[in-house]
Amino acid sequence: MSTQQDQIKRIGVLTSGGDAPGMNAAIRAVVRSCVYYGIEPFGIYRGYEGLIENDVEQMNAGSVKHIIHQGGTILKSARSPQFKTKEGMAQAWENIQEHELDALVVIGGDGTFKGAMEFGNKYDFPIVGIPGTIDNDIYGTDFAIGFDTALNTVVEAVDKIRDTATSHNRLFFIEVMGRDAGFIAMYSGIGGGAEEVLIPEKDRGIEQLFESLERTSKRNKSSRLVIVAEGDKNGSVYDLEEQVKEQFGDRYETKVTILGHVQRGGRPSCGDRVLASRLGVLSVEALRDGKRDIMVGIRNRKVEYTELDHATKRNPKMDKELVRVADIISI
Amino acid sequence: MSTQQDQIKRIGVLTSGGDAPGMNAAIRAVVRSCVYYGIEPFGIYRGYEGLIENDVEQMNAGSVKHIIHQGGTILKSARSPQFKTKEGMAQAWENIQEHELDALVVIGGDGTFKGAMEFGNKYDFPIVGIPGTIDNDIYGTDFAIGFDTALNTVVEAVDKIRDTATSHNRLFFIEVMGRDAGFIAMYSGIGGGAEEVLIPEKDRGIEQLFESLERTSKRNKSSRLVIVAEGDKNGSVYDLEEQVKEQFGDRYETKVTILGHVQRGGRPSCGDRVLASRLGVLSVEALRDGKRDIMVGIRNRKVEYTELDHATKRNPKMDKELVRVADIISI
Amino acid sequence: MSTQQDQIKRIGVLTSGGDAPGMNAAIRAVVRSCVYYGIEPFGIYRGYEGLIENDVEQMNAGSVKHIIHQGGTILKSARSPQFKTKEGMAQAWENIQEHELDALVVIGGDGTFKGAMEFGNKYDFPIVGIPGTIDNDIYGTDFAIGFDTALNTVVEAVDKIRDTATSHNRLFFIEVMGRDAGFIAMYSGIGGGAEEVLIPEKDRGIEQLFESLERTSKRNKSSRLVIVAEGDKNGSVYDLEEQVKEQFGDRYETKVTILGHVQRGGRPSCGDRVLASRLGVLSVEALRDGKRDIMVGIRNRKVEYTELDHATKRNPKMDKELVRVADIISI
Amino acid sequence: MSTQQDQIKRIGVLTSGGDAPGMNAAIRAVVRSCVYYGIEPFGIYRGYEGLIENDVEQMNAGSVKHIIHQGGTILKSARSPQFKTKEGMAQAWENIQEHELDALVVIGGDGTFKGAMEFGNKYDFPIVGIPGTIDNDIYGTDFAIGFDTALNTVVEAVDKIRDTATSHNRLFFIEVMGRDAGFIAMYSGIGGGAEEVLIPEKDRGIEQLFESLERTSKRNKSSRLVIVAEGDKNGSVYDLEEQVKEQFGDRYETKVTILGHVQRGGRPSCGDRVLASRLGVLSVEALRDGKRDIMVGIRNRKVEYTELDHATKRNPKMDKELVRVADIISI
Repeated sequence: MSTQQDQIKRIGVLTSGGDAPGMNAAIRAVVRSCVYYGIEPFGIYRGYEGLIENDVEQMNAGSVKHIIHQGGTILKSARSPQFKTKEGMAQAWENIQEHELDALVVIGGDGTFKGAMEFGNKYDFPIVGIPGTIDNDIYGTDFAIGFDTALNTVVEAVDKIRDTATSHNRLFFIEVMGRDAGFIAMYSGIGGGAEEVLIPEKDRGIEQLFESLERTSKRNKSSRLVIVAEGDKNGSVYDLEEQVKEQFGDRYETKVTILGHVQRGGRPSCGDRVLASRLGVLSVEALRDGKRDIMVGIRNRKVEYTELDHATKRNPKMDKELVRVADIISI
Repeated sequence: MSTQQDQIKRIGVLTSGGDAPGMNAAIRAVVRSCVYYGIEPFGIYRGYEGLIENDVEQMNAGSVKHIIHQGGTILKSARSPQFKTKEGMAQAWENIQEHELDALVVIGGDGTFKGAMEFGNKYDFPIVGIPGTIDNDIYGTDFAIGFDTALNTVVEAVDKIRDTATSHNRLFFIEVMGRDAGFIAMYSGIGGGAEEVLIPEKDRGIEQLFESLERTSKRNKSSRLVIVAEGDKNGSVYDLEEQVKEQFGDRYETKVTILGHVQRGGRPSCGDRVLASRLGVLSVEALRDGKRDIMVGIRNRKVEYTELDHATKRNPKMDKELVRVADIISI
Repeated sequence: MSTQQDQIKRIGVLTSGGDAPGMNAAIRAVVRSCVYYGIEPFGIYRGYEGLIENDVEQMNAGSVKHIIHQGGTILKSARSPQFKTKEGMAQAWENIQEHELDALVVIGGDGTFKGAMEFGNKYDFPIVGIPGTIDNDIYGTDFAIGFDTALNTVVEAVDKIRDTATSHNRLFFIEVMGRDAGFIAMYSGIGGGAEEVLIPEKDRGIEQLFESLERTSKRNKSSRLVIVAEGDKNGSVYDLEEQVKEQFGDRYETKVTILGHVQRGGRPSCGDRVLASRLGVLSVEALRDGKRDIMVGIRNRKVEYTELDHATKRNPKMDKELVRVADIISI
Repeated sequence: MSTQQDQIKRIGVLTSGGDAPGMNAAIRAVVRSCVYYGIEPFGIYRGYEGLIENDVEQMNAGSVKHIIHQGGTILKSARSPQFKTKEGMAQAWENIQEHELDALVVIGGDGTFKGAMEFGNKYDFPIVGIPGTIDNDIYGTDFAIGFDTALNTVVEAVDKIRDTATSHNRLFFIEVMGRDAGFIAMYSGIGGGAEEVLIPEKDRGIEQLFESLERTSKRNKSSRLVIVAEGDKNGSVYDLEEQVKEQFGDRYETKVTILGHVQRGGRPSCGDRVLASRLGVLSVEALRDGKRDIMVGIRNRKVEYTELDHATKRNPKMDKELVRVADIISI
């Protein structure tokens, strides 16, 4: 094993795809683990785009000073259509050789891992992925970096909206992020004390919402919050508002809020910082141990390695018990 | 004067119009000042609506326990078209007589004060107003209750958006509240470090924005935030985005965020709590001193009484020096 | 099973011991689950103290409206020496019979569960415990309610202290809560980017701290944060400061901060709200299913029942991997 | 005037004394104003210490990118005993000449301004001061940079402590900063809804506290918060606790929290950012206009210039009306 471990002398690290709070904590852990193990760390800017454009810089413990609490990513991020081309990949490979990198740690989501897999296979190059996305839609880890912070950001916003909703007896539709997944909506719906949560994984149709609103309009409940996942099948929050207006007239005064990109930023939560620190250390150790083409994750509080192929092809399941809990306590 | 002071034995307090953080601190101060001066305080729910529907409750020091830090208003708020009718006013007057109220403290904005003025004149009834609106568009006070909290909410959101904007080199249009006034936009634009602030009071046309974007697209500045007041004359943030896309194509990757109702809620800032506490005390003391048809405000750190007539007819001016400061530091 | 389920018609709920953010979310979930299952919920104030003094109130869905986001506990908490006496217990039992309660849900930590166990055994009465303590020192659940929020509170404070530490090149000793356990210190140490973490579970003696400070005083590192668990074996933070001053003289400018009771309060994090909501539902369902003398917990994302006897006698272990991660990234 | 304005070609900026949130926003505004007016800005690290050690660096608009929201000061701060010596001053003067600086902007408090005054007089060198201290104890400005943020930090902590105080019916003594001034205590006492505020400017003796506690112990008020300024004349919070214990025995369960250095850090509030931005611009313009030996401040929303001599010799007065308001609403 020691022979393998000596083979990794230089590691490049990049963040790619949508940014997520805690990515900086992960970068910091990767860089410091490298220093700890006598490996030279290199920062690659703007994801695969920077790899192609040779936007690469040697890093050291000082490069990652005072970033653990900062949102965003100091390495910046980008989506790189070029990296899907033969020429783009070839150029990236040239730059990797120029810097004599022995391995890559890539931090991001599905798209990031797909690119890593293709590139790693093509050039027989060791790559380890770290799951970072507020959407939490990555198979192979209980939570992705950024999810916990996004949840806190959302419930904080929901708390604020509840203040004004309650003061005016209003019905709010609040759209949250999550792409095709309803994780942000489901967790923040429970945590925010929402009366309804609409997610793509559990489409019950608009009728169920109508029924529920029918019941409460009779009970004269003071205000109502409906959390809607952006991937929900019943149309946009504006469509929903329109349909509710048609159905209920002025029995409900409705408002719409799309939380938008505030969900991507902000100081990472302690949970995300700890998760990112662990995964950063584990990614470097995995490379030293000869692992490649895998994603490091934490499941049931233990490290888990998932082949990138699986991580990208499978989807994590919505926890049915959470749906049940949401139904029971939103009565 | 002591005769006057003895005439006020029961005071009703209500919040009306859009809610604002700090209204609870004002209610608390009104109620506690009443208790301090041996006056019986009555809470009127849902503004003038509750006055008409006799939704009135006697209060005491205990009724306002642990509310100073809560957003929204425990008395709830509403807009009341009924109060503009003769019948509505008559019903309100009946209820006031039933509860033997000697005066009202009304917390809100322009609309609230207009209603107060008409009603006070019609029935020769003493009313004192307290300015509470995040829009800060009230003449006669440096700041209205809620403005400072809204600013902090907005810059916190802007800080988060900057995290992701910087990570991706994006141009964000962020719409903030303020109705016809640009105060939230101007202050949060400076405080948020925005590159551009678009406000109705200083319409320079879309060309100026284009020029500025032209300059920076050459300097390759990493990200740009444009704060847009909802009352801005150049159209919605979506219109702006569209125009910028047409003009600049893919030289800018644009995004839009409408902050919406989160700006109305949240724990009030210390500044708003202190302001609300002062104005609450001053409103009760003004009534005891025989004042009526006035709004209490703080100007230059001193109490100021403004006739409701003036408060509603005049508009506060945008501070030119702020505009100048914004121009200088956004280079 | 249905017979069992019908036997539980009235459930009392109380919070006891040190309060923790999220307890309100748990109370809310217990009460709403009761309503959902047709059980009458009763709130018992001030823990066992209120049970003895018959400070008991029937609750309904409305009693727990708008509390999910509030710190503290609306049922209040207390430590009850009386409940350890025969007379105290007898009085409590009398009150339980008076209200015809069929079971209790007790929310708290070790002391709470010990009391529950004795009482439950003595009177053959069904009790289910929910783990709520910021210290996280409860066996049988991955996390106790309040821990996640406390971590976020601590890292937020640490972030602030880092601002001033960095500006002045200072060495800070920051004492955090946790009683005999170092969980808050270890997690917040990693999350806060502390250079050193001193916990009771891993006592390395003051010499190791000296060595580390020796190294960095040579490297001229700009500032240093040392997180100290209150249960640490090397004395109080003031003792530590004293010893470092003696050893290093003016090579370090030292400061001490004891975070104190701010760690117990505050709006619960989304994670704590979701955890509390799940455990609240599960506790009521456990009672309906005839379970008793157990604590409901979540381990590896699944419900787990632990006998109260075990929960109080065993201690959760400090995760060794976390200690390792902390060592690697604090270089 | 244009001749004068052309004389200032290079300006040095430094932060000195205790750091305060918003100092970075002030540095940013100074640097950007310089760029705007064609002046070259130089950053001096660690206050006068760095001036003596020639720790000076040319800055540009990019040097102050993304710092407006950061606590602390990127230029760092220090207290410099050396600067009080003839040799220290001479060395500083030499470095100023080496960098061909034409003027200084110094950001800090009393001590900072005294040093500036002596140095400016001795070498006939133009210096302008910007008031930055959370203690707000500077004459010549309504508010100093950092005060507003510290207030929000304190009330947020007080809100958290109230959660746990209320849950346990406890009496808390909370010590806040402010040196000899009670501004933080008075404002945060009102904003935090404290039952008592003890400040050096209004020493009523321990007896008054006893009387008040006597009254409320009879009324059985659920919890009590006493905010104590660090400069209060009745001894430390620990002394106070001791005296209350002696007087009241177990009628009150007491706790002590010293908020400490968290008050110095954190993201600046919007108010502090706007204030700092204005003062930064004004300081550079004052120098261009030939002003020297003055501090720029904002009074009654307008710029005000105060001779450094006055700023250091006089003390701002505690607003009597605030004391009155605190008394009325804490009944």
